[in-house]
Amino acid sequence: MTAFTIDFEPVGLRGKCRRNESLLACARRLGVGISSICGGQGTCHSCKVQILSGTVSKPTSNEPEVFTSQELKEGWRLACQTYPTSDCKLTVPPESMTTPQRVQVEGLEITVHPEPPVQAYRLQLAAPSLSAPRADADRLLQALNQQHQLHCGKVDINALRILSDQLRSWNWECQAVVRNDEVIALLPRPSHQLGLAIDLGTTKIAGYLVDLSNGRTLAAKGVMNPQISYGEDIISRITGVIQLPDEGVPVQKLAVEAINELSADLCAELGANTEEIVEAVVAGNTAMHHLFLGLPVRQLALSPFVPAVSRALDVKAGDLGLRIAPGAYVYLLPNIAGFVGADHVAMLLATEVLQAEGPIVALDIGTNTEVSLVNKEEVATVSCASGPAFEGGHIKNGMRAATGAIERLRIADDSIQYQTIGEAPPVGICGSGILDALSQLYLARIIDEGGRIVENHPRVHTYKGQREFVLVSKEERDGQPAITITQQDIRELQLAKAAIRTGIQVLLEANGCSEDEIKQVIIAGAFGTYIDVANAVAIGMLPSLPLNRFRQAGNAAGMGAKLALISLSKRAEAQAVASRVKYIELASAPNFEQTFIQAIYLGRYRIIDGRREEID
Amino acid sequence: MTAFTIDFEPVGLRGKCRRNESLLACARRLGVGISSICGGQGTCHSCKVQILSGTVSKPTSNEPEVFTSQELKEGWRLACQTYPTSDCKLTVPPESMTTPQRVQVEGLEITVHPEPPVQAYRLQLAAPSLSAPRADADRLLQALNQQHQLHCGKVDINALRILSDQLRSWNWECQAVVRNDEVIALLPRPSHQLGLAIDLGTTKIAGYLVDLSNGRTLAAKGVMNPQISYGEDIISRITGVIQLPDEGVPVQKLAVEAINELSADLCAELGANTEEIVEAVVAGNTAMHHLFLGLPVRQLALSPFVPAVSRALDVKAGDLGLRIAPGAYVYLLPNIAGFVGADHVAMLLATEVLQAEGPIVALDIGTNTEVSLVNKEEVATVSCASGPAFEGGHIKNGMRAATGAIERLRIADDSIQYQTIGEAPPVGICGSGILDALSQLYLARIIDEGGRIVENHPRVHTYKGQREFVLVSKEERDGQPAITITQQDIRELQLAKAAIRTGIQVLLEANGCSEDEIKQVIIAGAFGTYIDVANAVAIGMLPSLPLNRFRQAGNAAGMGAKLALISLSKRAEAQAVASRVKYIELASAPNFEQTFIQAIYLGRYRIIDGRREEID
Repeated sequence: MTAFTIDFEPVGLRGKCRRNESLLACARRLGVGISSICGGQGTCHSCKVQILSGTVSKPTSNEPEVFTSQELKEGWRLACQTYPTSDCKLTVPPESMTTPQRVQVEGLEITVHPEPPVQAYRLQLAAPSLSAPRADADRLLQALNQQHQLHCGKVDINALRILSDQLRSWNWECQAVVRNDEVIALLPRPSHQLGLAIDLGTTKIAGYLVDLSNGRTLAAKGVMNPQISYGEDIISRITGVIQLPDEGVPVQKLAVEAINELSADLCAELGANTEEIVEAVVAGNTAMHHLFLGLPVRQLALSPFVPAVSRALDVKAGDLGLRIAPGAYVYLLPNIAGFVGADHVAMLLATEVLQAEGPIVALDIGTNTEVSLVNKEEVATVSCASGPAFEGGHIKNGMRAATGAIERLRIADDSIQYQTIGEAPPVGICGSGILDALSQLYLARIIDEGGRIVENHPRVHTYKGQREFVLVSKEERDGQPAITITQQDIRELQLAKAAIRTGIQVLLEANGCSEDEIKQVIIAGAFGTYIDVANAVAIGMLPSLPLNRFRQAGNAAGMGAKLALISLSKRAEAQAVASRVKYIELASAPNFEQTFIQAIYLGRYRIIDGRREEID
Repeated sequence: MTAFTIDFEPVGLRGKCRRNESLLACARRLGVGISSICGGQGTCHSCKVQILSGTVSKPTSNEPEVFTSQELKEGWRLACQTYPTSDCKLTVPPESMTTPQRVQVEGLEITVHPEPPVQAYRLQLAAPSLSAPRADADRLLQALNQQHQLHCGKVDINALRILSDQLRSWNWECQAVVRNDEVIALLPRPSHQLGLAIDLGTTKIAGYLVDLSNGRTLAAKGVMNPQISYGEDIISRITGVIQLPDEGVPVQKLAVEAINELSADLCAELGANTEEIVEAVVAGNTAMHHLFLGLPVRQLALSPFVPAVSRALDVKAGDLGLRIAPGAYVYLLPNIAGFVGADHVAMLLATEVLQAEGPIVALDIGTNTEVSLVNKEEVATVSCASGPAFEGGHIKNGMRAATGAIERLRIADDSIQYQTIGEAPPVGICGSGILDALSQLYLARIIDEGGRIVENHPRVHTYKGQREFVLVSKEERDGQPAITITQQDIRELQLAKAAIRTGIQVLLEANGCSEDEIKQVIIAGAFGTYIDVANAVAIGMLPSLPLNRFRQAGNAAGMGAKLALISLSKRAEAQAVASRVKYIELASAPNFEQTFIQAIYLGRYRIIDGRREEID
């Protein structure tokens, strides 16, 4: 038996699979981080992959538990149970990746017909002479008219400032980059026409460099948002900013400088110049959007939580301090409300919810969770204050997704299996691990449906007056303090998951839908992409629906930004989505309080008119 | 006889005229500086004024020498010969003012129907609430639509940055200032809507603050252009700039800062705020235009002398560093060529040459003199390197128009009469005085038609190997060095005046006109306004035409800038004038050299095909 060649996508790594080596073992040996808790027993279901081409061993008895027959037909398999029988190409979806593999830039790829807002036109100009001393810019605009039948009336002032030198150094041969009726840059022949899409998150910034001529993503990178020093979540960021003497100015500069460095890094990967970036799109939540533009945020944090602007904007990069082509524009996707931003619009755009059969529920889970219900071209949206628990905040041993964080966890037969980021010794527990813990403790009846930790369990003890469950004991950590889930942690998590579930219920009620009617639940964003959906359903954070109705969409906001970058039709679509949204203020919904109280309970249930009906 | 009340315009000073007091004596006593060399004898003809209302004494025998009967009918008189017989209102034209009265901002006033590019709309907005949390800018644009049927799609980013605070502090009541489909500023109710017109000269900057609602000039002021430290004339300015490491940046800032101070001063006069300036127009020569915008000037100084841009531009004030309304635009009138700038276009606009019967010759005299010939809607333009002699440069005792400069001069019966600025003891001689001196020396036959100083005159002596004529002797200056006109000075002046005359001749020949056909010669600019036209004709600087065909237009460039500020139709007209201009490169004209050589001669003559024909 010869060794087969295996292509791992989207990582782009290729290597030989050894004899009798499972896809999981092969991936790990080659350095492709695929998630696995059970150690390859086929029981944790973390290592899902999709075979795109080639043949593999038949499904084992575990796999039909995990996949529908349709999914098996589409090539979905557990990597630990699968052995190649030919050269193979396979996809590792984001939710199966270990955290260090996740650069916060993955997301579903949609191919879209490029229809960019800027076009480059090749020009050959006659050099001026004493008998034809026409001004440089006038000469350029005349040539655009004569050689391309284009009536441009404007040249950006920053482009104009370097145009005379450029034309002379390029011997009167160039590409003119045109947006509407304005020349925004000159480029030498040949050169790229690049676009930059930015998902500007409260915590992270993801950047994508795109070839505008064909829509292909050429490079992608994620970095931390340095504004984090002014507050980790949106409200503390706003509070931090409005206490500064000159409000947003230094904070605005921080984000802009981070994006400048990010785009320089992305360009360096291609050997390109940042001046070849001729258009940018930025999508962020309303506060990040405002702080990036230097708009005031004070009124965002005070009732009635009003944005300075919601509609889509075209702003000159130079007005923001962004170092790309001299006259390039930054397009800002529209916001919906003070706490439902352009990133949510981008997500709705990327997941094509308006085109799909509804009702669809689409969520961005974060400190603030935005939920939309899309049904028959109507969109209703709420914003839920889900708090920082799922990001590790307010949790005793909570931490961000960093090396040593427990990211996956299973309780089986009183034994605890977990996986840490980087397979390092455990130091804390991050979002997806926290969710797993809540669910697994509930399913193992170590906490009851009210969230109370039981007394009579060997790993439960009382510390400083409150019960806690020991995930990793002091002994298991060689004398370091134990990693525990406390009663207080569980209360925090119950509030967080109740907020999300309440948002979904309020939308369903406002639209007269029952949850059974929901055709699809789309979960986007970093946390949402990496959670175990079955665990989220088990605790009642998400409605109890067949698992195949859930779709984890990765960084859909970044993807939406990319679509808006490439296509004017997609911008129009984003505007249409945003203008169609009916924003519902959660606290003023009829059954809000009763629903919220019911949603605090753990388990699988329906909530109808503020009453809870258990399922099973 | 009771005392009459006299109104002096445009100075705006009013006072009582004493018994048997001439208008000149009255003006001087009240502090209105009217020019006079002959001491009120009616012989120097410097003190021309126009009576607008009221009755005065009959013309004396001197006056029909000076004025046509038509002019006398129109109220033109010599102030020294005229005694009021009732209350009077009169105009002191710029050419009759003493220099300290001239703020470089006078110019003919044309009333024009206001048709400004910006409009202010009063708005009353509903305050946002939890049930109507629409974003501030979206709310504003909706109100513009609902209350004024205006479809604005944009809000300037700088206006947007302060809009939320403004609306809240004005209790949701404001004026929105709109330009095309963009909101460029919010203003409180009530407030001015001001416009700023700037004549950006190489030496001086004149600023006019205009009420955009009615076109009235509310304040005007002239200041020095601080860029002068980088070079006094255009070529030395360009040379100075391109030797700087970062080229135009600090020089650009100098001009912008001067305009910022100027507009702050103008606003202070009205108790207005510079943010109430919602539109600005700047007119300057091509080099000043480029330096103001931060455009490169290197190629302006090298053949084929090509501007970076000629067409009219709308540039955001913020992109230039101009502190006016946050989103306001600066409109730049179009340039014609490397050495014929927007200031010349402004002058052609203000003097309404296209509407008048031609042929018309229009000149801006300066270090560089631009001359246009307008005939049957065709405009041909040349630029003449007339040099700095008429600004006092390269002249032994030449100086700028400052206190102590001889500004008017007459030689009668071997005695020299002169007037100094501020009536101070003479320290040198400025432009208009230099021209007077050349002409008066020629008419007194102290220099011959070739420009040679005669030997046998009591005031002629030889100093360091060259002849010179003593205007003010060492004795007359109490032992200070004499003020003289040297043979070398006369050569410089001959070259300067020959350049101007050659420009006129080349245009006439190119258009097949004879000089007798010229209906009007318009002389604009600081120097042109204050020269004695008869003296300029006597030396052959200007064609020998009846004096009533000459019109001194004051600061016509500033006036043109004001017209463009007030009226979109005038902007279109300026564009039409600029696009109609045929620029002729002087040095390549057929009879250029022969014409120039002939034009060096002094006296009244015609030049036809490079041959000189004396007149008289």
